[in-house]
Amino acid sequence: MPKKIEVCLTPALIDLYDIEESIVVVIDILRATSSITYGIENGAEAIIPVANVEDCLKYADKGYLLAAERNGEVVKGYDFGNSPFSYTKEKVGSKTIVLTTTNGTKALHLANKRAYQVVIGAFLNLDSLCDYLKNQHKNVLLLCAGWKDQFNLEDTLFAGAVVNKLRKNFEHFDDSSVAAEDLYLLAKDDLRKYLHKSSHSNRLAELNIEDDVVFCLQLNICNAIPVLEGERLVKLNQ
Amino acid sequence: MPKKIEVCLTPALIDLYDIEESIVVVIDILRATSSITYGIENGAEAIIPVANVEDCLKYADKGYLLAAERNGEVVKGYDFGNSPFSYTKEKVGSKTIVLTTTNGTKALHLANKRAYQVVIGAFLNLDSLCDYLKNQHKNVLLLCAGWKDQFNLEDTLFAGAVVNKLRKNFEHFDDSSVAAEDLYLLAKDDLRKYLHKSSHSNRLAELNIEDDVVFCLQLNICNAIPVLEGERLVKLNQ
Repeated sequence: MPKKIEVCLTPALIDLYDIEESIVVVIDILRATSSITYGIENGAEAIIPVANVEDCLKYADKGYLLAAERNGEVVKGYDFGNSPFSYTKEKVGSKTIVLTTTNGTKALHLANKRAYQVVIGAFLNLDSLCDYLKNQHKNVLLLCAGWKDQFNLEDTLFAGAVVNKLRKNFEHFDDSSVAAEDLYLLAKDDLRKYLHKSSHSNRLAELNIEDDVVFCLQLNICNAIPVLEGERLVKLNQ
Repeated sequence: MPKKIEVCLTPALIDLYDIEESIVVVIDILRATSSITYGIENGAEAIIPVANVEDCLKYADKGYLLAAERNGEVVKGYDFGNSPFSYTKEKVGSKTIVLTTTNGTKALHLANKRAYQVVIGAFLNLDSLCDYLKNQHKNVLLLCAGWKDQFNLEDTLFAGAVVNKLRKNFEHFDDSSVAAEDLYLLAKDDLRKYLHKSSHSNRLAELNIEDDVVFCLQLNICNAIPVLEGERLVKLNQ
């Protein structure tokens, strides 16, 4: 069977895709899947994504690091927030982290129910991820976490980057793959500048996470590919 | 309140939008909204969109023209199919037509439940539609009918054309508007060529509707804007 790449532009559309035999790549560039990738690269034993601060609390007595933010501030009593700068070797090496993320967690849980495998993508591990995908004999669904079930630019651009890298290795591409790739080609010379067009750029400015945004748009500073095993994201053994 | 344009990339996402005070433009370029626009331009009294051939049958004894296709062929006993070439002055002038369309009807019915007003857009009436929208003091939702709830290129390109025409007249644009506009700007010099990238181009070729596709990509051959009144699409009085 010829290999197929599709892009699911928001988690609200995932039921339209037949993913039982597919590798699903979950994408939440600002900032969940970037922080997860960086944390796993830096030796975190596992990262457990949860949907909200209350779910995070359930893990409070297990000796895990707890990461939770509200309105861009670390929640009182928690170890750190969602900034990738918190996921350094010193802070996360050999640790298990429970990470609160709304859009990313939703996408992960939806994919986990049905997919053959769920992995994590970010600009930080783009080449490593694409090398892996090109060597599997599986269809690929690139699942954009979006923003509250709506389409967003940053996740779509990353999906487009993957499509672009894998164009010669796959045979079938859906319309959203074509669109994502063309948007990526428009944006790739200055991703940050392109994202200023985004409706979220005001929101991002208000959260004061400009340094995080710049960090998350770096290419290939990580080799690790996080993979979902049960509820835990761990490093994929290649 | 500043005026906002948003693009809903498939009917499956419409519940995310607050449209009670919005004008919703339903877009199903190949071929429902193109045929509807051309039919209303050519003097059809009304066009009633229905979801399937069975629903179409309910109108059989009312003296309406019945349009129904399956697999690209006119259904036996019906007056004509969905090709815009059937919607000429000679055929539809002063007539009421019942039109079978799956994606377009679904989008129309979903919008009709909640929106302030539902109008029909196609490349055929692009300028006329944009002139109308720019003079209303309403938010606009561009609703792409898509293909079986999935994103498609042709409807998105048209949404992008509208965004591009109205950029100076509206203040807020969501991420899907930005994406649609950029895709339109990439494609606009040769829309037909761009659509060859589409996953649907094979499907379209199989249906043998190339002449229809070329027809539906013409700009501004119509002035009429069809508007939904109850279940009937009629000419908007301006």
